Amino acid sequence: MASSEAAPAPAASAATHKGCTKDCCANDAPGCSMSETNSFKAADTVIDLAPTMKEKPNPSNLVFGTVFTDHMLTIEWTCSGGWQKPHIRPFQNLSLHPASSSLHYAVELFEGLKAYRGPDNNIRLFRPLLNMERMLKSAQRACLPSFEKEELLECIRKLVEIDKEWVPYSDSDSLYVRPTFIGTEPSLGVKKPSKALLYVILCPVGPYFSTGSFNPVSLWADPTYIRAWKGGTGDCKMGGNYGASLYAQYEAMERGCQQVLWLYGEDHQITEVGTMNLFLYWINENGEEELATPPLDGVILPGVTRQSIIELCQKWGEFKVSERYLTMADLLTALREERVKEMFGSGTACVVCPVGRILYQEENLHIPTMDNGPKLATRILKQLTDIQYGRVPSDWTNMV
Amino acid sequence: MASSEAAPAPAASAATHKGCTKDCCANDAPGCSMSETNSFKAADTVIDLAPTMKEKPNPSNLVFGTVFTDHMLTIEWTCSGGWQKPHIRPFQNLSLHPASSSLHYAVELFEGLKAYRGPDNNIRLFRPLLNMERMLKSAQRACLPSFEKEELLECIRKLVEIDKEWVPYSDSDSLYVRPTFIGTEPSLGVKKPSKALLYVILCPVGPYFSTGSFNPVSLWADPTYIRAWKGGTGDCKMGGNYGASLYAQYEAMERGCQQVLWLYGEDHQITEVGTMNLFLYWINENGEEELATPPLDGVILPGVTRQSIIELCQKWGEFKVSERYLTMADLLTALREERVKEMFGSGTACVVCPVGRILYQEENLHIPTMDNGPKLATRILKQLTDIQYGRVPSDWTNMV
Repeated sequence: MASSEAAPAPAASAATHKGCTKDCCANDAPGCSMSETNSFKAADTVIDLAPTMKEKPNPSNLVFGTVFTDHMLTIEWTCSGGWQKPHIRPFQNLSLHPASSSLHYAVELFEGLKAYRGPDNNIRLFRPLLNMERMLKSAQRACLPSFEKEELLECIRKLVEIDKEWVPYSDSDSLYVRPTFIGTEPSLGVKKPSKALLYVILCPVGPYFSTGSFNPVSLWADPTYIRAWKGGTGDCKMGGNYGASLYAQYEAMERGCQQVLWLYGEDHQITEVGTMNLFLYWINENGEEELATPPLDGVILPGVTRQSIIELCQKWGEFKVSERYLTMADLLTALREERVKEMFGSGTACVVCPVGRILYQEENLHIPTMDNGPKLATRILKQLTDIQYGRVPSDWTNMV
Repeated sequence: MASSEAAPAPAASAATHKGCTKDCCANDAPGCSMSETNSFKAADTVIDLAPTMKEKPNPSNLVFGTVFTDHMLTIEWTCSGGWQKPHIRPFQNLSLHPASSSLHYAVELFEGLKAYRGPDNNIRLFRPLLNMERMLKSAQRACLPSFEKEELLECIRKLVEIDKEWVPYSDSDSLYVRPTFIGTEPSLGVKKPSKALLYVILCPVGPYFSTGSFNPVSLWADPTYIRAWKGGTGDCKMGGNYGASLYAQYEAMERGCQQVLWLYGEDHQITEVGTMNLFLYWINENGEEELATPPLDGVILPGVTRQSIIELCQKWGEFKVSERYLTMADLLTALREERVKEMFGSGTACVVCPVGRILYQEENLHIPTMDNGPKLATRILKQLTDIQYGRVPSDWTNMV
């Protein structure tokens, strides 16, 4: 009997992988392969160095993500054979079957982190296990196989070590690390892939704010497009979240704004900004000085920078730090009553990104982030980058 | 200044494609390339035939989507050069840059239709322009370039003609046609791709119901996972909709059901089933005989089979045909009052697929579709397949 794209056949053949006799393929245990803890091992890594090395550009002049280093990491998985040995090989195109499940059904996810060269010439990764943990969570949601996060981190460390001359000698540039995990199932039909590829590529990147001073962004806040929803995948770094966001980003630009302020629900909850988490530093409705960010309720990506800002400010103990709902009505009232101090996005690329203006219901709202320094955003940026570049000691970095 | 994945830089460089001087890349006209009507032309198609042809399998024994024909169609687009000439070439792997936007951000979409060989030996496509129109709509939503739908259809016709011996000589098998459109932007950063690839692959497929008699499916109805939401992409055939659905599909199977009945909203609206549209044939709350399916309000994929069933039954004029909301409460009441006649999914693969059981709130609901024939589903199946295979004349088919 034929299975089908439009509807798995009654015998549930969608769950089985042809030729595979493993339990994970049995009809009565569809989820088992996802929870297996067998993993590739970094110690098995096969290294195939590039015969010639590319010239290294000046990262300060680069458009993000356009120049790649000499090598990449690839690790293949099949349902029947499990994980293969990790390979570090010359950066090259991927040869993919045209039916690959990543190309049709977005069985795909990624991560983003950076390697920083310090004044001591050591190279550090910033809280990389948090990225590995989030990647595992995304893999589970995408029905891709599991692996040991420490093993992937060690593979990444080896890759960065081999391309270490690509980590800029700079106190503001860095090397962006992009782990990617895609389904390579070579057949159509909406089903768990029987083949997958985990790979990692590297890009030297310049500072987000080139002049060294903050440049605030303008946001379009409109409920027409919704980034993520409860019961969806907004809390995982899956490809589908991003492709679906592009159209709104360009509509924001047509309206004279730089990014989208993503709203949610009838009460226009403020959730994220562009591809960043969002923070509001204000005097809240109870008169308390508060740094607030939306809670991880399923529609918010659990950002590593987000978590670090929360933990940093909690450690300071100087003001209330809250994961709480924030609506546009809350913001409008606070603006009117002059209780807003700063609003900023947070992410790996910029660390913090001040918000200067929001276009909402045909009205331009001035956000006084820059008028207030921004004192808090500047302090957070300095503290986090000092840790990232190893200018102050911290257990938030892992040496390469 | 460097742009960034986590936040397009204030200068909005995310909208521009390096090296491209076209208007579509200007900061103040971000959407223009999408509305350009320039297109590839089928008359320009370059044909490169495979040196040897593969053996053709018996489609009745095939798992859906696992065997491909000898040739494929590829058409490349770049922001600076526009559409290139269509190519029909031997079926082969794609060589993709590892940063391709389809692999990271699911800038991707697809279509699905079939070619049928009739008793007159002619090969027909079923309402293919509806698929071309939906593909254009998906492309706009995904920020991929536009094209002329008649030109793509003519390219597909040429491809099927070249592989015409792969269209099964059978009154129940067919050749599945899978147009796919992916972003191939070779850099990171969430932005409109400056490169894209449209391709079409073909698979011989067997009948959905192998024995020739209906086999009803069981469904898991639960609000934990939401397929699509207003402000999202549920009305477009974008990859992200499908990868996000896999986890729920396997959870349904763990609960002893074959597919997911996708619910929406606080009132548990019935929206779709698996990857099919849904129909309920019942005596409605006003005592009227009605065939009902959820309206195209943004969370429903506008299926070609869905539209054809609506139009067919409207033409009969024997009962009310409605696009209306249906909730689980409506269904429960109707089941209790014995007003439900049939429930079935609809899609290209199966045409119609009867529903026999729904697991909802720990309770198994018997759906009496099979007890009632299913009279309507059987009649629809016969009428539509008679049209598809050319056994009755219709303007719903296009000759290859």
